[in-house]
Amino acid sequence: MAVNDVKVLGSWSSPYVIRTRIALNLKQVDYQFLQETFGAGKSELLLKSNPVYKKIPVLIHNDKPVCESLIIVQYVDEVFNGPSISILPSDPYDRALARFWAAYVDDKWFASMQGIAAGKTDQEKKTAMEGVSTGLELLEDAFQKLSKGKGFFGGETIGYLDIAVGSCLGWLRVAEKLSGTTFIDETKMSGLYGWAERFCSAPAVKDLIPETEKLLEFIKMVFAKMNSAALK
Amino acid sequence: MAVNDVKVLGSWSSPYVIRTRIALNLKQVDYQFLQETFGAGKSELLLKSNPVYKKIPVLIHNDKPVCESLIIVQYVDEVFNGPSISILPSDPYDRALARFWAAYVDDKWFASMQGIAAGKTDQEKKTAMEGVSTGLELLEDAFQKLSKGKGFFGGETIGYLDIAVGSCLGWLRVAEKLSGTTFIDETKMSGLYGWAERFCSAPAVKDLIPETEKLLEFIKMVFAKMNSAALK
Repeated sequence: MAVNDVKVLGSWSSPYVIRTRIALNLKQVDYQFLQETFGAGKSELLLKSNPVYKKIPVLIHNDKPVCESLIIVQYVDEVFNGPSISILPSDPYDRALARFWAAYVDDKWFASMQGIAAGKTDQEKKTAMEGVSTGLELLEDAFQKLSKGKGFFGGETIGYLDIAVGSCLGWLRVAEKLSGTTFIDETKMSGLYGWAERFCSAPAVKDLIPETEKLLEFIKMVFAKMNSAALK
Repeated sequence: MAVNDVKVLGSWSSPYVIRTRIALNLKQVDYQFLQETFGAGKSELLLKSNPVYKKIPVLIHNDKPVCESLIIVQYVDEVFNGPSISILPSDPYDRALARFWAAYVDDKWFASMQGIAAGKTDQEKKTAMEGVSTGLELLEDAFQKLSKGKGFFGGETIGYLDIAVGSCLGWLRVAEKLSGTTFIDETKMSGLYGWAERFCSAPAVKDLIPETEKLLEFIKMVFAKMNSAALK
């Protein structure tokens, strides 16, 4: 076993998996990416590594599994000290705010984004779209406060909240396509607009945000299978 | 303004508020406890301090609000370094596990406990009881691994996961009373059984876990009001 034997159980399409991979890239940690395939059944390694939720991502570091994406990102930040980049903000209050908004993304905002693809009625889709917009307004406001005039939520460099929100940008673009809406308007959300461009073109990120058409086809396939399974 | 001007917006009955207060007690921080009263409308200070969720607890430290109980506990641990007690485990892997199980309590387990009081049908109540039991079996297992033969999840002293789980013990006793079940069985869950006794009698905790009869009456009143509001 190498000094740092790192595996990621995941899939290219999951924002939560993307978080894990961005964090490892930022810390310049090599890892083995073991893909779980939708519809093909879960691997033995996944079932063993995350028996509570049986979900990706799982980071396996020297045979020890870490589950839940935001917990993984914090673990990566704490364990891999190689580059001087710190993912979590150094100030405890900024850290609390970054944790608050990251939890907001997971508890509220991302569900709305999924609702745009999964909504069964026009009303459900409308509610989902409002949820995405309201969330982005709050995140624009948080960006203005937290970035302090710099390029990222985390200041000069990509940090915890950048990863939490930015990992969802592929899904956001799909949601824009499905609904025919531009959610991050250049004028109304000037902070997030520039941030999204910078984030997606950063070296640690740019190969990980899925191409919109490919993700759109994948999401359509997933929801079609889920809906047909629900009808059976 | 004092060097550490600390306020907690909360209520005596909320496990999430109890977490905040235990953390402050462990760090020997004096604070002003401002009670929100159920049914009396939310205070201006709460609405201003937590505009996203409008929920307790909020910790206000030198006029800056911190929301969400587990984020507050981490903030308290990072900011108040007075006593040498560290609330989060010092090892990053133990920290990841403590965060994982604390999130499990909030995302899964506590909802089952509420379901025992809130369930409208026998089936709903049965499902809730199974959820509470299954969660406790997982937590017993986690206790055996994390405590490493010591008295708490955090080892020798009360830590992050102790606070996350232990703050719910008042509700658990009410759930036991309502369902006529002993959830933490002395034989089957010997780890948690002894732990719960130690936790509730610790100086930082003992005045904060609500008396069972008082909490039971309060919970009955809350759910009765919520149900009658839902019927209107």
